[in-house]
Amino acid sequence: MTIKISIDCMGGDHGPSVTIPAAISFVESEPDAELILVGLEETLLAELKKHKASEHPRLSIVNATEVVTMDDPLEIALRRKKDSSMRVAINLVKQGNADACVSAGNTGALMAISRYVLKTLPGVNRPAICSILPNQKDGPTYMLDLGANVDCEPQHLHQFALMGSALVSAMEGNPRPTVGLLNVGEEDIKGNEVVKQTAVLLRADHELGRLNFYGNVEGNDIFKGTTDIVVCDGFVGNVTLKASEGLGRFVKSVLTTEFKSSPLNMLGALIARGALKAISQRMNPSRYNGGSLLGLRGLVFKSHGGADAYGYQWAIKRAFDAAKYDVLTRISTKIADLMPQSAATPEDSAGAIPNATIEP
Amino acid sequence: MTIKISIDCMGGDHGPSVTIPAAISFVESEPDAELILVGLEETLLAELKKHKASEHPRLSIVNATEVVTMDDPLEIALRRKKDSSMRVAINLVKQGNADACVSAGNTGALMAISRYVLKTLPGVNRPAICSILPNQKDGPTYMLDLGANVDCEPQHLHQFALMGSALVSAMEGNPRPTVGLLNVGEEDIKGNEVVKQTAVLLRADHELGRLNFYGNVEGNDIFKGTTDIVVCDGFVGNVTLKASEGLGRFVKSVLTTEFKSSPLNMLGALIARGALKAISQRMNPSRYNGGSLLGLRGLVFKSHGGADAYGYQWAIKRAFDAAKYDVLTRISTKIADLMPQSAATPEDSAGAIPNATIEP
Repeated sequence: MTIKISIDCMGGDHGPSVTIPAAISFVESEPDAELILVGLEETLLAELKKHKASEHPRLSIVNATEVVTMDDPLEIALRRKKDSSMRVAINLVKQGNADACVSAGNTGALMAISRYVLKTLPGVNRPAICSILPNQKDGPTYMLDLGANVDCEPQHLHQFALMGSALVSAMEGNPRPTVGLLNVGEEDIKGNEVVKQTAVLLRADHELGRLNFYGNVEGNDIFKGTTDIVVCDGFVGNVTLKASEGLGRFVKSVLTTEFKSSPLNMLGALIARGALKAISQRMNPSRYNGGSLLGLRGLVFKSHGGADAYGYQWAIKRAFDAAKYDVLTRISTKIADLMPQSAATPEDSAGAIPNATIEP
Repeated sequence: MTIKISIDCMGGDHGPSVTIPAAISFVESEPDAELILVGLEETLLAELKKHKASEHPRLSIVNATEVVTMDDPLEIALRRKKDSSMRVAINLVKQGNADACVSAGNTGALMAISRYVLKTLPGVNRPAICSILPNQKDGPTYMLDLGANVDCEPQHLHQFALMGSALVSAMEGNPRPTVGLLNVGEEDIKGNEVVKQTAVLLRADHELGRLNFYGNVEGNDIFKGTTDIVVCDGFVGNVTLKASEGLGRFVKSVLTTEFKSSPLNMLGALIARGALKAISQRMNPSRYNGGSLLGLRGLVFKSHGGADAYGYQWAIKRAFDAAKYDVLTRISTKIADLMPQSAATPEDSAGAIPNATIEP
């Protein structure tokens, strides 16, 4: 079965110089993938030719004359640039010509355009951004929301838990992934009102067998891998994600400085280069690139804006897997099935302004 | 000038086996320090004798017959155990017999008892917990609140900024420390309502020269060292701190595993042991041990519950420095001076229940 992914080739810090090589490598490694490259036709063609891939049977180009920049205000991205590579790539999903879309562009614009073009799923008030983080069990911890919603009500966090569960059971083949509610302590009495009320909703679902709710988790549980999914509001999620990225960079800079600080240390590093390579691989954020915009009537994946071709391939792979495992149907079913009582309607779906700058 | 610090010797995961050796080392390194060891007299005396320090002229014992455990509900800690080592140590500050107090006990109990016994400073609605984190500039980033207040209003965050500024200018000899407001993006339009309104208050203070407000900062700025102080509510602060601790442990476990994974890697690690030692020292959380409970009419410092003697010494040192540099007067002045219009009264000061379990 062929799976078609539309790629916003102009998005991100590097544009086609990263997205095109990533697309070529991915399509070569995945015989069932067909990629639709969206952007300025001439530029894309030139880049393809550079890599001798302009004739690849599973790579096609769709022209788009505009580009959403990282600095574009949402209004411009949404209302003015109707022929942007981002918009056209999302339109392809809407029209059924692509099974999923990948972009490394401006997250706020991507969420706003996706909501506007695709709309939210029935039962979903607000879409959320979900990414994975590495953990000590050498598995992924899925975390959401990472910045689409800075103020959340309990029913939003409840929906995030359901959507996250559907995503993880599809992507990881785990029928009952555990859900942790991010809090300041494990006990029920901890936390603010929103979190406490969310726990009540999640516990009720757990008792009905609809959700595998572990209970409250704390910040350290994210990297411990205590639960498969960690649910939080977009403010907390965004700050935590970025703090972790910052700490990661800090550690890396300390390692680099110290191993270069003397000839002896450099020699040791040379001898133990196998260990250093393994460390760098296990900690490589590229492996965790590719956040899902969950809750839309279509699959949209966000790559880190600064991702290299290796990282961008991971984002394409996640989009490919999500389409392959039919994440969309699973989420719709889970939300519809579990919340028949809910008359949830999308909130200000058209002009939705995701609040965080995020690089999942 | 002699500075007296009361030590809750029974608090923390290890009790006297950590607190007593730490107290002995500290008092030996600091000729101006006098430490009052609070706890079960016999136990403390036995531990002192073990270290041949029972006759030390600047170490005295004050007996306390009860111990607040990590699991004690606040009500028990606050209302029942009136002769706990924690309570007696704080009483010594209240009575003017100690200039500051250090405890590694239950944070919730420590905050509740401190508020009850010492009360808050005029102009302070709510005390906050402030700790330091390492940053890429090799300096400390002071962050607050780390868990005392899970729901904050703009005026609370404003007070945290003022208290943090007073603390940092005293502790670091920095007359105009920069204050960053933790948010999901740098731009003014980012964030939730509380953060946006806080920014207005901080900007007004900045324009009056009362505060050196940098603007919004993001999670990664904590470890970048963009500002001297990072202000946030206790929910976000607690989660971020614990996530960072969790990531730190994760990185450490990866380093350990990989450098032990083969004889060659072990040899390399041996040769580069200078680098590994330097890395471990720069990343050692013990160096950053000792959080301040700010906004009280007395100095109280919290050590990590699991701290070793080296880490506990750092907490004592922070308490000592805070007393030496008269942090209390500076905070009172800053709050009183800058908020003459504020008729802030402490909120439910007696039975205050800090909401987070925290190990700053």
